[in-house]
Amino acid sequence: MKFVIIGGDAAGMSAASRTKRNRPEFEVIVLEQSQDVSYSACGMPYNIADPERSMEDLVVRRAEVFIEKNKINLLTGHRVTRIDRKAGKVMGVTRDNQDFTMAYDALLIATGARPHVPDVSGIDLPGVMPLKSLDHGKKIKAFIDENKVQKAVIAGMGYIGLEMCEALRARGISVDMIKPGPVFLPWMTPELSRVVADEVTANGVNLYCGEAITAIESVGDGGLMVVGEQRKLLTDLVISASGVTPCSELAVEAGLKTGIAGAVAVDAMMRTSDDRIYAAGDCADAIHVVTGDKCWIPLALRANRAGWAVADNVCGKEIRLQGVVGTAVFKVFNMQVARTGLCLQEAREAGFDPAEVVIKSRSKAHSHPGSAMIHVSMVGDKKTGRLLGAQMVGTDGVAHRINAPAVALHAGMGVADFIQCDLGYAPPFGPVWDPVLTVANQLIKKL
Amino acid sequence: MKFVIIGGDAAGMSAASRTKRNRPEFEVIVLEQSQDVSYSACGMPYNIADPERSMEDLVVRRAEVFIEKNKINLLTGHRVTRIDRKAGKVMGVTRDNQDFTMAYDALLIATGARPHVPDVSGIDLPGVMPLKSLDHGKKIKAFIDENKVQKAVIAGMGYIGLEMCEALRARGISVDMIKPGPVFLPWMTPELSRVVADEVTANGVNLYCGEAITAIESVGDGGLMVVGEQRKLLTDLVISASGVTPCSELAVEAGLKTGIAGAVAVDAMMRTSDDRIYAAGDCADAIHVVTGDKCWIPLALRANRAGWAVADNVCGKEIRLQGVVGTAVFKVFNMQVARTGLCLQEAREAGFDPAEVVIKSRSKAHSHPGSAMIHVSMVGDKKTGRLLGAQMVGTDGVAHRINAPAVALHAGMGVADFIQCDLGYAPPFGPVWDPVLTVANQLIKKL
Repeated sequence: MKFVIIGGDAAGMSAASRTKRNRPEFEVIVLEQSQDVSYSACGMPYNIADPERSMEDLVVRRAEVFIEKNKINLLTGHRVTRIDRKAGKVMGVTRDNQDFTMAYDALLIATGARPHVPDVSGIDLPGVMPLKSLDHGKKIKAFIDENKVQKAVIAGMGYIGLEMCEALRARGISVDMIKPGPVFLPWMTPELSRVVADEVTANGVNLYCGEAITAIESVGDGGLMVVGEQRKLLTDLVISASGVTPCSELAVEAGLKTGIAGAVAVDAMMRTSDDRIYAAGDCADAIHVVTGDKCWIPLALRANRAGWAVADNVCGKEIRLQGVVGTAVFKVFNMQVARTGLCLQEAREAGFDPAEVVIKSRSKAHSHPGSAMIHVSMVGDKKTGRLLGAQMVGTDGVAHRINAPAVALHAGMGVADFIQCDLGYAPPFGPVWDPVLTVANQLIKKL
Repeated sequence: MKFVIIGGDAAGMSAASRTKRNRPEFEVIVLEQSQDVSYSACGMPYNIADPERSMEDLVVRRAEVFIEKNKINLLTGHRVTRIDRKAGKVMGVTRDNQDFTMAYDALLIATGARPHVPDVSGIDLPGVMPLKSLDHGKKIKAFIDENKVQKAVIAGMGYIGLEMCEALRARGISVDMIKPGPVFLPWMTPELSRVVADEVTANGVNLYCGEAITAIESVGDGGLMVVGEQRKLLTDLVISASGVTPCSELAVEAGLKTGIAGAVAVDAMMRTSDDRIYAAGDCADAIHVVTGDKCWIPLALRANRAGWAVADNVCGKEIRLQGVVGTAVFKVFNMQVARTGLCLQEAREAGFDPAEVVIKSRSKAHSHPGSAMIHVSMVGDKKTGRLLGAQMVGTDGVAHRINAPAVALHAGMGVADFIQCDLGYAPPFGPVWDPVLTVANQLIKKL
């Protein structure tokens, strides 16, 4: 068995390592266009925040280790340009401009996602930078140091943008954030979104929502001018963080089926429309457990899990993934932000008849020191009583709390079942009725 | 409807308040032998730890509020001595030695639990004190202040004993802990139990397991001598914390069915063997969701939830509780300790064919600052693949993490389903594979 993997990031390397663990006799070849494999992409903002840390800290495992210890044929600097399904081959070009061809018995497309590049003049100026790969991270950090950056504009207000906003403020850099959409966090219930926005602005960041960038201009001596619809922002650095796009061109050109958001369509076994070709990670779609529909929610855990599933399936195990519930957490300054499942609007669009409750609760017991306010939203379906989603923001005890409703979503629990859950209680960690139970106790009255 | 409630603690007051909210026209009478209702019993150790705080901080709601605002006929200083089921009456005596009789249409026994009193000479000496009621807490705190306590012995190593141990150390008091059982935390898997024991001893506390106390002696000038089987401990204060016993005497004398540990037997609607009499809180039993058998796990959330269920049922709603999974968390010094479901030994005793895995994992992402080690155990059933329980200890990110497997236990999930759960990930809060997923990924290989 010759198993070829295009892309040596989370999904690709998970698949490669697990295949060799399962079946050491299989030949596993990874073709990675960059020099970097197995690094903590999500850790980059935290690393950039700390001038004392090297970006190399983020490397979990070096390419040599995969080659020598795991016996993976890991070829960095190898960019695949075409998949020939009939011949069972991939073709490409190396960093040194050498053409190569590689035959496969099974193929995994793990090409990930790339930053969306807005169609704005000046987006390619020096000092305008996206953050996705380790290389991007290194460039941003070096740019900050070398140019003594004092001002930055972040275009976009997604997870990456907000994490970078905190990182830049930690470096003493003043930050403006701007995006065309009118709502700060459109997937979040308005009351909770406001709490997060307040935390960001309280940390000295300007938020300009509903304002597209029309141009970025060079203004002598390395300065940049971000021209928005209503203002001009003078800056040293622009972080372009307006979302990502699945890298599915190879799949499209090979005639494989793509679907939502242009991601490669896969079944529960991570197979594309060609039985010999799998796709996993940020380039592939998934089933949303709550809606039953296809979705594209590129996150790290799914990439790792899908990589493992592909490895097992290449080895003949027939592993089927159930899908995702869209659980996501991030931190911005002192605020922890978490979501799982559907928000009210998503629930409506998916054809449910949803009700939502938003509450405030203490993060710790009555009168316990260090308690903070948690804002919790929960959405349920009036027709079936089913739990559909939950969201939470607060400075204490938010991140891990979201996982209880996340598991309930996987189990297809009704809100009436969820309120019966026997969750932990001790004064340093929460009130007797955990905030996720309190919100469910309120929600059940509206279903 | 005249609804009489014996006991004005968590279950009793929850039932009383909710009944009046549901049906303001119902007459609700609470007979409470002490003066205190609605206080945070679990908060007492943390209050005792802080000499600046008043014990009154722990009172969530005063009796007057229940009487005036909620229109509950709350009678403190009323001790019930007998239930006459035929006549539908309870009899008792007031603090002022007045006999009283109260007729009921529906009755709730919410008498709670009392500290187990070991059969040891000297257990009634001044300076030997249990901690269960607010009155106990007040006495301990006053005793510490008035006698300038420097040394304490805690008899028992349960949650209360360990929380008190931390509280006393915070007051600069040296602490010895002693108990007859040979194992520090017998319900915890040995590797995790050792981590907790190490934390306790690292904080200057001596642990003497496997050593019964044979006597407590007075040694002049207020001093006490705890005589163990192998040593004598000179001390100023003894906290008697060797567990609690359900207060089910009234029920037993009335001929109601009791069961496990002597607790009042109730059905899913919290009805005793007499249709007009309910029981809830620490005096009543429950179904364990994992085993399907009766259990007695007296914890605050269950008491509150059962109180609500009784209220709804008295009001004709027919609420059935599914049962408990035994989720419990506590903190001792910097260590967070959490469990849910069955440990290996309990699983064997319940007739499962269990396998267990114990792992260590980082609490935060690779290379993220502030990451600490979490020790996690998970137990599954080899016959059915079902998840049976989980335990966790660590200084960071333990308490709320236990709720994900707790919900999975309620859903009856298999380990193979649990490993598919889409949990949150961000570097400040955990690794990509959350520790509860990593342990499940290992456990599935043994099932």
